[in-house]
Amino acid sequence: MEGKATEIATLGEFGLIDHLTKDLQIRNSSTLKGVGDDCAVLEYKDTEVLVSTDLLIEGIHFDLTYVPLKHLGYKSVVVNLSDICAMNGTPRQITVSLAISKRFTVEHIEELYAGMKLACEVYGVDLVGGDTTSSRSGLIISITAIGDAHKDKIVYRNGAKDTDLICVSGDLGAAYMGLQLLEREKVASQGQIDLIPDFGGKEYLVERQLKPEARKDIVAILAENGIVPTSMMDVSDGLSSELLHICHQSKVGCRVYEDRIPIDYQTAIMAEELNMNLVTAALNGGEDYELLFTVPLHMHDKVKDIKGISVIGHITSENLGCALVTRDGAEIPLKAQGWNPLA
Amino acid sequence: MEGKATEIATLGEFGLIDHLTKDLQIRNSSTLKGVGDDCAVLEYKDTEVLVSTDLLIEGIHFDLTYVPLKHLGYKSVVVNLSDICAMNGTPRQITVSLAISKRFTVEHIEELYAGMKLACEVYGVDLVGGDTTSSRSGLIISITAIGDAHKDKIVYRNGAKDTDLICVSGDLGAAYMGLQLLEREKVASQGQIDLIPDFGGKEYLVERQLKPEARKDIVAILAENGIVPTSMMDVSDGLSSELLHICHQSKVGCRVYEDRIPIDYQTAIMAEELNMNLVTAALNGGEDYELLFTVPLHMHDKVKDIKGISVIGHITSENLGCALVTRDGAEIPLKAQGWNPLA
Repeated sequence: MEGKATEIATLGEFGLIDHLTKDLQIRNSSTLKGVGDDCAVLEYKDTEVLVSTDLLIEGIHFDLTYVPLKHLGYKSVVVNLSDICAMNGTPRQITVSLAISKRFTVEHIEELYAGMKLACEVYGVDLVGGDTTSSRSGLIISITAIGDAHKDKIVYRNGAKDTDLICVSGDLGAAYMGLQLLEREKVASQGQIDLIPDFGGKEYLVERQLKPEARKDIVAILAENGIVPTSMMDVSDGLSSELLHICHQSKVGCRVYEDRIPIDYQTAIMAEELNMNLVTAALNGGEDYELLFTVPLHMHDKVKDIKGISVIGHITSENLGCALVTRDGAEIPLKAQGWNPLA
Repeated sequence: MEGKATEIATLGEFGLIDHLTKDLQIRNSSTLKGVGDDCAVLEYKDTEVLVSTDLLIEGIHFDLTYVPLKHLGYKSVVVNLSDICAMNGTPRQITVSLAISKRFTVEHIEELYAGMKLACEVYGVDLVGGDTTSSRSGLIISITAIGDAHKDKIVYRNGAKDTDLICVSGDLGAAYMGLQLLEREKVASQGQIDLIPDFGGKEYLVERQLKPEARKDIVAILAENGIVPTSMMDVSDGLSSELLHICHQSKVGCRVYEDRIPIDYQTAIMAEELNMNLVTAALNGGEDYELLFTVPLHMHDKVKDIKGISVIGHITSENLGCALVTRDGAEIPLKAQGWNPLA
C-alpha cells in the first residue's frame, strides 16, 4: 500500500477500535447495543439464535502476497455468514477479533475493515463487537457470526432420508482452481511486487477464490418456493467431505453422479491446463461456499427448474455406502480428501 | 507433561474435535444444539442475548513456561464470562476456537480442554461450538461468551450519575503481583523445568494470576439485595483505566479515595518486597476481574454491609475530572496506565 503508514501504537487499542468503528451503522432491529461496552446486547424474541465461529491465521488460511487486505476482510466475514445460511438462517451480527503484528499499519487495518464493512453492507449484518490485540507473527482473524431462524425452518446435517434428492447451488471447484492459479503466479513472479499477472479468461476463478459469497440468495429462493431441505451444509472443505458428514450424521448412504456435478467452463479449462482431474477438483477442492442440501424426492419438479440449483444424486440406505457414479456407470467410494488444517 | 504424546495429525481436525467434545454435557435450556453442525442453535425468548469475545495469544497474553495448560483453559473461559457478569448478566454458552502449532500434542490440548470444561462446570456454561486449526507459531485461543439478562436489568458503562457511589468487589492488585512473582521465578529458574518454586505465603497472588474467577456471585448478591447498578464494568485493564471508561461514557467525573481501595495483605507485602508503589499496582495492575460499579447515593446503607463489596469513592460532575484522593487529601488526576496490548 502506498501513501500514509501510521503505526498502530500511535492510536493504542481503544483509539484503533474507536477509529475503525466510529461510523458503524446498525441495520437489524435485533441489535440493541453494538460496539462500546463489555458485551453486545441482542434481542431474539421470536426466533432461535444461530452462532458460528471461524479462526483465520496468516500463512495457514491466507497468503497476503496475493490476497488484498480488503478481499481478505470481505472473505473472512462471508465464510462465517455462510455457516448461518447453511442452517437455513439469516445472518444478523458479527464480532471481529484481530491480532496484529508490528508490520501492519493503521492503513492496512483500515483496508481489512473496509472489506469487512462492505460484507456487512452487502449482507445486511451488524458488526457488534470484538477484541483487538497484538500478535507475535502475522495477522489472526477470529469472527463469530450470529443469525436467526424460526425453529421449524432450521436445517441440520442429520435429517437426510433414503430416496431424498441431493442438490447443490452454483458450481464447484472454481475456488480451488483460483487458488492454484494464484499460487502459480506467486511462484512465477518470484516476489516481484509490482508485476501484475494476466488473469484474462480466468477472472471467474480468481474471483471465486478471493471474493466468495455466502448463498443467502439460495436460502431466500428456497423459502419463496416453500422448500425446507431435510439436511444442509455449506461446501467449505469440498463436496466429498461435506456429503460424508451429512451421510454420517443422517445414518444414510448416497450416490452422486459425475455428469451432474456443476462445473464452470473456466474451471474445466484450468484443470486441463494443470493436467488435473476435473472431477477430483470439484469433489475435493473446497472453499466454494455453495449450499449442499437434500430434499424429499417428491420435490423433484420444484427444485429442478430453480436456476442455480443442480440435482446431483440421491440418498440411499446406510448399508449401500457413499459413492460417486462415473460417466461409464462405475461406482467409486467417496473419500474425505478435503483440506485438513491439522494434517 | 509426562506420559503419552500423541501427534494431533493422527486424529485430524474432526477427530480431535470429536475426541474433545464427545462427553460434553448441556446445562442450559437455552442451548438447543451444541457442537456438531454448522452453527449452535440457542433459544432466548424472554431475555436479551449478551455476546462478548476475547482473543488470547501465546507470548502476548500468556507464557506457557509458568502457566499450566489446565489453568490457561480455565482462565481463558473465565475472562470471557467476566464480561457477561459485567453487564449484570448470566453466562450460558461459549464457543472455543483454537489454533495449535506442531509442538502441541493431543494430551496438551486435553489438558487445556480440561480447564475449559471445569470452568464450564463451575459456571454452569455450555460449550456449544468453535473451530480448530493449526498455527505457525504457538497457541491461539479465541472464545466467545453468550449470556442472558432481562432488558431492565442490563447495566451499561454509561449510566453513572453525579453523587453515585463507586463500588468494587474483592480486592485489587493481587493478580498483577502474582504475575510479577511468576516472572521473577521464571528468570530465577533460568529454564530449569523441574525446579519447583516456593510460593509459601504468596499463594493468593499466584492463584489470582493463574486462576481468576468471574464474579457471578456478586451479580447474584446484587440481585438478592434488589440493587441494579447505574453502571458496571469488570476490572481487566486496571481500576484507573476502567473508571475513566465509565466516566467518559457517562459524561461524569469521579473521586476515588486511596485509603478505601481494597488490597490484600499479601499484595502489600509483595509490593514492599519489590519496592513498588502499592496504590499504583492496585490502580493499574489489571487482570483482577473484579466488578466495578456505581449505585445511587441512597443505596449506601444497602451496599456498605455486603461482604466483599467496598465503597471506594463517588461520581462527580464532569467538569471536576477524575482524581485519586490520597491519604493526605491531595488530588492526583487518574490516568489510564493499564496494559496496552498494542503499545
